[in-house]
Amino acid sequence: MLKIGLLGAGRIAGVHATAISSNPLSTLAAVSDYIPENAEELAAEYDCAARTTEEIIADKSIDAVLIATSTDTHSGLIEAATAAGKAVLCEKPVDLSLARARACQAAVAKTGKPVMIGFNRRFDPNFSTLRAALEAGEIGKPELLSITSFDPAPPPIAYIMVSGGLFRDMMIHDFDMANFLMGSAPESVSAVGSSIVDPEIGAAGDIDTAVVTLTYADGRIAVIKNSRRAVYGYDQRVELLGSKGLLQAQNMLENTVVKSTEAGVTSAKPTYFFLERYMPSYANEWGAFVQAIQTGTPVPVSLEDGVLALKMAEAAAQSVSEGRPVKLSEVAG
Amino acid sequence: MLKIGLLGAGRIAGVHATAISSNPLSTLAAVSDYIPENAEELAAEYDCAARTTEEIIADKSIDAVLIATSTDTHSGLIEAATAAGKAVLCEKPVDLSLARARACQAAVAKTGKPVMIGFNRRFDPNFSTLRAALEAGEIGKPELLSITSFDPAPPPIAYIMVSGGLFRDMMIHDFDMANFLMGSAPESVSAVGSSIVDPEIGAAGDIDTAVVTLTYADGRIAVIKNSRRAVYGYDQRVELLGSKGLLQAQNMLENTVVKSTEAGVTSAKPTYFFLERYMPSYANEWGAFVQAIQTGTPVPVSLEDGVLALKMAEAAAQSVSEGRPVKLSEVAG
Amino acid sequence: MLKIGLLGAGRIAGVHATAISSNPLSTLAAVSDYIPENAEELAAEYDCAARTTEEIIADKSIDAVLIATSTDTHSGLIEAATAAGKAVLCEKPVDLSLARARACQAAVAKTGKPVMIGFNRRFDPNFSTLRAALEAGEIGKPELLSITSFDPAPPPIAYIMVSGGLFRDMMIHDFDMANFLMGSAPESVSAVGSSIVDPEIGAAGDIDTAVVTLTYADGRIAVIKNSRRAVYGYDQRVELLGSKGLLQAQNMLENTVVKSTEAGVTSAKPTYFFLERYMPSYANEWGAFVQAIQTGTPVPVSLEDGVLALKMAEAAAQSVSEGRPVKLSEVAG
Amino acid sequence: MLKIGLLGAGRIAGVHATAISSNPLSTLAAVSDYIPENAEELAAEYDCAARTTEEIIADKSIDAVLIATSTDTHSGLIEAATAAGKAVLCEKPVDLSLARARACQAAVAKTGKPVMIGFNRRFDPNFSTLRAALEAGEIGKPELLSITSFDPAPPPIAYIMVSGGLFRDMMIHDFDMANFLMGSAPESVSAVGSSIVDPEIGAAGDIDTAVVTLTYADGRIAVIKNSRRAVYGYDQRVELLGSKGLLQAQNMLENTVVKSTEAGVTSAKPTYFFLERYMPSYANEWGAFVQAIQTGTPVPVSLEDGVLALKMAEAAAQSVSEGRPVKLSEVAG
Repeated sequence: MLKIGLLGAGRIAGVHATAISSNPLSTLAAVSDYIPENAEELAAEYDCAARTTEEIIADKSIDAVLIATSTDTHSGLIEAATAAGKAVLCEKPVDLSLARARACQAAVAKTGKPVMIGFNRRFDPNFSTLRAALEAGEIGKPELLSITSFDPAPPPIAYIMVSGGLFRDMMIHDFDMANFLMGSAPESVSAVGSSIVDPEIGAAGDIDTAVVTLTYADGRIAVIKNSRRAVYGYDQRVELLGSKGLLQAQNMLENTVVKSTEAGVTSAKPTYFFLERYMPSYANEWGAFVQAIQTGTPVPVSLEDGVLALKMAEAAAQSVSEGRPVKLSEVAG
Repeated sequence: MLKIGLLGAGRIAGVHATAISSNPLSTLAAVSDYIPENAEELAAEYDCAARTTEEIIADKSIDAVLIATSTDTHSGLIEAATAAGKAVLCEKPVDLSLARARACQAAVAKTGKPVMIGFNRRFDPNFSTLRAALEAGEIGKPELLSITSFDPAPPPIAYIMVSGGLFRDMMIHDFDMANFLMGSAPESVSAVGSSIVDPEIGAAGDIDTAVVTLTYADGRIAVIKNSRRAVYGYDQRVELLGSKGLLQAQNMLENTVVKSTEAGVTSAKPTYFFLERYMPSYANEWGAFVQAIQTGTPVPVSLEDGVLALKMAEAAAQSVSEGRPVKLSEVAG
Repeated sequence: MLKIGLLGAGRIAGVHATAISSNPLSTLAAVSDYIPENAEELAAEYDCAARTTEEIIADKSIDAVLIATSTDTHSGLIEAATAAGKAVLCEKPVDLSLARARACQAAVAKTGKPVMIGFNRRFDPNFSTLRAALEAGEIGKPELLSITSFDPAPPPIAYIMVSGGLFRDMMIHDFDMANFLMGSAPESVSAVGSSIVDPEIGAAGDIDTAVVTLTYADGRIAVIKNSRRAVYGYDQRVELLGSKGLLQAQNMLENTVVKSTEAGVTSAKPTYFFLERYMPSYANEWGAFVQAIQTGTPVPVSLEDGVLALKMAEAAAQSVSEGRPVKLSEVAG
Repeated sequence: MLKIGLLGAGRIAGVHATAISSNPLSTLAAVSDYIPENAEELAAEYDCAARTTEEIIADKSIDAVLIATSTDTHSGLIEAATAAGKAVLCEKPVDLSLARARACQAAVAKTGKPVMIGFNRRFDPNFSTLRAALEAGEIGKPELLSITSFDPAPPPIAYIMVSGGLFRDMMIHDFDMANFLMGSAPESVSAVGSSIVDPEIGAAGDIDTAVVTLTYADGRIAVIKNSRRAVYGYDQRVELLGSKGLLQAQNMLENTVVKSTEAGVTSAKPTYFFLERYMPSYANEWGAFVQAIQTGTPVPVSLEDGVLALKMAEAAAQSVSEGRPVKLSEVAG
């Protein structure tokens, strides 16, 4: 039974608390948060201790920490926890700065401790079924990947301003999905973007709508579409054309009821947002982490995976600002 | 916090144990089974006591019992538990004998204790969404109901022989669904059936394929189709034609992946069986029971509902054996 | 090149005129109608002669006639045309009276001329694909057939009064579809019906909503649902459960556009009515007739098929009026 | 009644011959082809004259010509026919050379004769329904357009070599679809492409897989995906995200039959290729042309539309060869 410390007590930390305590191989020992009351509240709900982050990291009885704090603290906490001998599952992204993420990676390497990055979508049953079909050769050789990833509504401008921008905050999930499905890094990244959903997002220096094309050394192509607003719900679809067919992962719907009237045939909307859509993937992600730690096998999403996605985000941002495709090899770090 | 005793430790009892212990308003206090080792195993898993049924019923600290034992014990246990002052949630059917169920109902009435029958499908999110749309008037006045309910594979012959027959064991769920959606009892029941899936089922005196038509005093009609075998999975669909449209609850699929190849466009099968399909409905059912008990409001599926469904099963069996429609009023009890 | 006389110049005759003149193996030579102006109008459109029915039947240069007149004239015209040596394609039903239809069948038998009955749905690409899959063994042995057949809106009461009733006028198509897919006649027919859509239909002595269950000697079962009103369009679906799977023919939609908004995900309605839905089947039906005539092979839908469907309609009507299942062998004729 | 001359007697000319002769407002007067036997065969089928192209153009009784010859002859024939006073419907593209197309446009302008370019997909019922919904404001303001356009199988290498390349031959349809739906020309074109389907296509100097991103002055974005091979059929989908929802035009399927077995739930493939999928659009296209000519209103797809799509193809080709986005304003002509 792994004893787990949970760093952070916000919304996503609550999701992880459920996964940790539901898993028969792990137990939630302690929670911390920069607002102690939040930690106390979550600790009460899950019948564990509320402590400081420092106490948790120093506690030798704790085997692993799950980092669900704000992005700017990720690198430091990964370093501190691995230095203290703990295994780590850290929410994405590793850091907003690629250089800082690289430094973190170097520090972790010295400890030899496992660090997994929380690209939970890899553990979504639909996407993992799609990948299994691909690996089983069901569509032959992959050629053209398309990822549609629209949020239901934009976050507050205050969030936008500290988010690192759409590529590092939102599309980073899709960059990792491309890596997960294509199995290798792209050669070049070509991005366009605009703030057509909300001009305030543009005024804040970010974009809300973007299309990124990735090219691979062997001729494969991937295209990722992001929008901060799809009023009908959380639109999360993947399709992959191969030499022998097409694989699609479609949206999950709120229910299976269909209504036919004079006005048309209406079915339910996609599940609203990530908590609804990806709840099973958080549980699966945690299960995969626990299993890797217990069996001493590599974690399924490495710190290197986290750094690669960040590098692609950096290239995309550079592509938009310079108005040209950017080779991944151009990105320093 | 309601303290619950679980009577029975089989497969479905395990599902209920999860629902009871996950609900913040109830706690699983004790489990019994006619095979004590089964009770001990389940008790260990849920960290509660393994006791005898008699002990649980006699324990004044236990507020309610969930009866998940074999059908022949249902009536007796409902009577004993309510006489001991407990609220009861009992798996369907109340009994295989309508007379016995009626006697149970009379006994319970004297205690004034709430008894809910486990027609869990009423709590399936799809069927309850369909009913809500109906009640909101979205298809006007209901006219013609169709229920498709196919199991993935027939049970063992040994089970068939003690099951009470397809109408009391399997279609009883669909009779209750018809009552749930139509809001009143039918006037007459007309049934046909055969053992075309497996002649051994016929040799055991039962049928495996059946169509039952229900007529209502106001001209509405319902038709229920059952088969013990749909090799593609658990086929659970409802559709209701009304004066202003059609409502359908379609199957839930194992995943949303679609594969297009030279052979066609293939999507996932329906979820395999009731544990997969109705898991959320068991949790919702339990939540509804707990809420009714705590607020002192009527349970949403009454013992009378259980008796009505049983009466319809009786009428259907009589219809098949006599080769004619049977009025519900003809059924003694 | 077959020279064709078209008897009748109403709406459905227009559909047949198109089929006849588009087929490279047939040419439309003449049209008649009891209202001569109608015949003249249609003749002008298709550049052929407007003549009397008697003239067409007497014209030795005409090889075959298509009978698209009112139902009460069908039997007489079939007899006259075959007696004159012509091949016949006659719209359904053969007659409203089973006895009259039997007499017609006897008269035709003496001429040895081919008579095909216009159960056009057999030639619908979806239903014929379904049947081909069944015959290819794709779902093993058939067990349980369901036919959903709803009109978009009821016809005028004046039509209802001369229609012969829902079973002979509307469900007769579905009886033939059952025969087409099941490959043999049922043993018994059990029907319920009501006039819940429009009480005026009831006042006119007919029903507007019906469910009919057919049982077969080998244990197979079929169920047919009819309603005169589905406000969302023409609902024409078939599904057949077999030992190795399920085949469904779903509705054809007006277009493939899907709109997702805050209100839900809306797709197009089914094509509105039979002219839209079954236009290709009329062309295919005609092609099959022409080919049979030219090759001297049996027509794919025989007069016997027409009589069988009528017999089933008769049994259904009797079942409703007597409130009991009726064996097909009980039906005189 | 417009008298029409058809230039060309190949496969697509046959489709147009059907449209011309089925339309009540036009009649097919004459056909020509550079292989006279082909013209004679088609003329025999449609009961019209086989003549030389020169004769048709010189014939004052012919009101309009439909040009369905090889691409290299389009500009010259447009010029000759308009100079002879005829209205023209010409298959896409206007020319492989933008300069040549511009010269043609200038020559036509002097004649004042209407020239329509055969972007038939604008007349597909699904795409035109989508556009009508957009114009009705059903998804608010458009923001992000995606076009998926995959052929079932690559053409012969010999065809590839004279085709003008994927952008001018295949994606030109999608460029026009973008113009049709977005209502204005893009500002810049960014393209990537590879020959991953078949290296021989690469050896012939072309690509078989491409993604093109279009950006608009107001921040809207469009992305077009092309592949020469989708083994499951002709994949022709459009989706458009707007401020109030999403519109999708999905594929048309060969039939509506769905088969559920142990292997999954299988439906029909998309209709195989353009003749199957776009047959109704050719008829609608011709109808729109005839109506414009007869009413003296502008043709719905202008020569300028043809030139704009060609310019976008040119920009895309330049973008691939130079590895950078190309502004439409950079393209000479």
